[in-house]
Amino acid sequence: MNPAAEEKQEKETGRTEAFSDGVFAIAITLLVLELKVPHPPDGGTVSSLSRALLSQWPSYTSFVISFFTILIMWANHHAMFNMVRRIDVPFLYANGFLLLVVTFIPFPTSVLASYLETPAAPVAGAFFAGTYVVLGLAFNLLWATARNRHLLRARVSEEKARELARRYRLGPPLYLIATAASFIHVSLAVGICAALAIFWLVSGRLD
Amino acid sequence: MNPAAEEKQEKETGRTEAFSDGVFAIAITLLVLELKVPHPPDGGTVSSLSRALLSQWPSYTSFVISFFTILIMWANHHAMFNMVRRIDVPFLYANGFLLLVVTFIPFPTSVLASYLETPAAPVAGAFFAGTYVVLGLAFNLLWATARNRHLLRARVSEEKARELARRYRLGPPLYLIATAASFIHVSLAVGICAALAIFWLVSGRLD
Amino acid sequence: MNPAAEEKQEKETGRTEAFSDGVFAIAITLLVLELKVPHPPDGGTVSSLSRALLSQWPSYTSFVISFFTILIMWANHHAMFNMVRRIDVPFLYANGFLLLVVTFIPFPTSVLASYLETPAAPVAGAFFAGTYVVLGLAFNLLWATARNRHLLRARVSEEKARELARRYRLGPPLYLIATAASFIHVSLAVGICAALAIFWLVSGRLD
Amino acid sequence: MNPAAEEKQEKETGRTEAFSDGVFAIAITLLVLELKVPHPPDGGTVSSLSRALLSQWPSYTSFVISFFTILIMWANHHAMFNMVRRIDVPFLYANGFLLLVVTFIPFPTSVLASYLETPAAPVAGAFFAGTYVVLGLAFNLLWATARNRHLLRARVSEEKARELARRYRLGPPLYLIATAASFIHVSLAVGICAALAIFWLVSGRLD
Repeated sequence: MNPAAEEKQEKETGRTEAFSDGVFAIAITLLVLELKVPHPPDGGTVSSLSRALLSQWPSYTSFVISFFTILIMWANHHAMFNMVRRIDVPFLYANGFLLLVVTFIPFPTSVLASYLETPAAPVAGAFFAGTYVVLGLAFNLLWATARNRHLLRARVSEEKARELARRYRLGPPLYLIATAASFIHVSLAVGICAALAIFWLVSGRLD
Repeated sequence: MNPAAEEKQEKETGRTEAFSDGVFAIAITLLVLELKVPHPPDGGTVSSLSRALLSQWPSYTSFVISFFTILIMWANHHAMFNMVRRIDVPFLYANGFLLLVVTFIPFPTSVLASYLETPAAPVAGAFFAGTYVVLGLAFNLLWATARNRHLLRARVSEEKARELARRYRLGPPLYLIATAASFIHVSLAVGICAALAIFWLVSGRLD
Repeated sequence: MNPAAEEKQEKETGRTEAFSDGVFAIAITLLVLELKVPHPPDGGTVSSLSRALLSQWPSYTSFVISFFTILIMWANHHAMFNMVRRIDVPFLYANGFLLLVVTFIPFPTSVLASYLETPAAPVAGAFFAGTYVVLGLAFNLLWATARNRHLLRARVSEEKARELARRYRLGPPLYLIATAASFIHVSLAVGICAALAIFWLVSGRLD
Repeated sequence: MNPAAEEKQEKETGRTEAFSDGVFAIAITLLVLELKVPHPPDGGTVSSLSRALLSQWPSYTSFVISFFTILIMWANHHAMFNMVRRIDVPFLYANGFLLLVVTFIPFPTSVLASYLETPAAPVAGAFFAGTYVVLGLAFNLLWATARNRHLLRARVSEEKARELARRYRLGPPLYLIATAASFIHVSLAVGICAALAIFWLVSGRLD
């Protein structure tokens, strides 16, 4: 291929990545909108507002978990794009599907925060973890598209591509376990999701 | 033209595209704000929250349709900018009009989600599809501006420009049919819009 | 100055402009959040939802005016940055003050939409136009900072800089007239603001 | 190190900075969503809407303070990135922690605005100032990571790095004083936060 065409492909890939980055940055910042100013029934005194702010810990917990999960997904998405030489239409829409799930995350986060201390907690936790099942599937689909359509850089060895595919394949079944575990206790689901976030952080490197 | 002026034009065009990309990225991410945490009257049990989350399928449907429509519009907008050599003030404002419609999309999406299962569904569907009529007009206006003001790159043949104009011209009448069809049944309107999204996806290529 | 330092200044300026662009893009897209799904008292029929959507015309009007005003401000801000060679701390904060006003615009827009058809319309219109008085002052401050601190490119003649300063100086008094006119009739205030938007569009060129 | 690897590092650093810039730009723009259209009980007359808009001064005050604090944090964050040659995983997540606190800021800002004139004001002020304690800690952590992991550019002298560390170390204790002072009077807390914003502005330079 000639250098001009190659440069154009680089630009194309860079632009899709910049768009994706924008979506990640906005989704991560919108999470704060799920935190609502509390309105204690007595109108607010030093002690009632303190209690009200502290009693919102489920919101803070799910805010922090979703924040770091999106941040780690961003870092992994970025690491994946570093290995991609060019993009095509199927890759563009596989990436679109991934972004769809990323922009959706504030919603189950908010549902979890609203119901974490209610009898409906198992459903909220399963909805939260279930969203990550779909996110895991989206990552697998994106990577499979990159591999099958020969979009990877020459420097990415077949071996490395396969190793990454193996790692991505862990996501859906593990999040499925978290989803099921929510019906035992919601904190199991949340704990597995937090543990997985740390696992992706440690196992995903920027190289 | 001298190289310095040409470089400046490239930069100018790139910056307008970056601004447009930002607007697309934000509009696509704001769609999630239309998804509201349900509040079942019994305060939430496993079964009532499950039912409440499932009963929001109209919201999810319109979220997904609007997401992919904006994503496809972004890809097409991007493909169009790839063919543009420089921009001028009329093009800037034709592009601004397109962005106005793009930022508006979350609103009819939300209206559709709210009324899909009510007697008012035909109006909501017509409002939704009607917005895409205007979006189609905006695309036609932008392309006509680029052609009439000679803003296209030399490599874009007159034939190709005409072919694209023909394709863009299909949008408004087809979305108008969807708008009218909403008064037969709302799902007809939604179905035509979804089918058109797939058509734009398949017919618009990144070249 | 050596080329390396010059390049660094260019980068610095570009980055502040990119940040400003982001703020403009987000502010312009957030305007849609002021559009609320109507809830007619009968739960929504074909005719009641149609009437309810049409009766929101004040919201649509102020959405469109604010959208185009922010868009034009963006184009003018961009034209100004094209003339700036380097930035310093006072310029950075003068620019910050301008961005403060830009991010504020969705609020008076929303107030105007809520009260356009009520007895409180004159106040809402004055609040709306008054915000543009402050925006005009911010543009003047930014331009004066660029001139007084010798941040302009060599190619910007003193004559041209003075001519632009004259044009920017028109903003505050004209918007002040719009603010006062709101107490005669709100549509006078809105009309002057719309006319001024067109004036900025026509008089501000991307050169 | 070879030039290609160096260039890649520059790109990597630039991309993380662009992502951070996006988060700063969105967080600063979302502040406006905390400003709510007032609804005076009489439906709105010239005098009741005027009074209602004026009585929201606590919202405007906290909007302006948070806006400038985020803007100054952005400028300081940017100045810090200018001194960073490359990033690694610990730095990426230290930066992520900083962004977490930045995206959180609209929430305590909103709480402060809601309770500034109520008996709960001391708690709201302490929550507001306390968030800045954590933000200060995040800045210290980020700078310590950059230093300990040798991520700084060669041109940044050890002396300068130490001087900056000293300055960053001032943040947490001073904001802690503001937090405690809120229990004497909320305006003390707000005043110290505003004074510190001006201090960061003056002491932080873009070099």
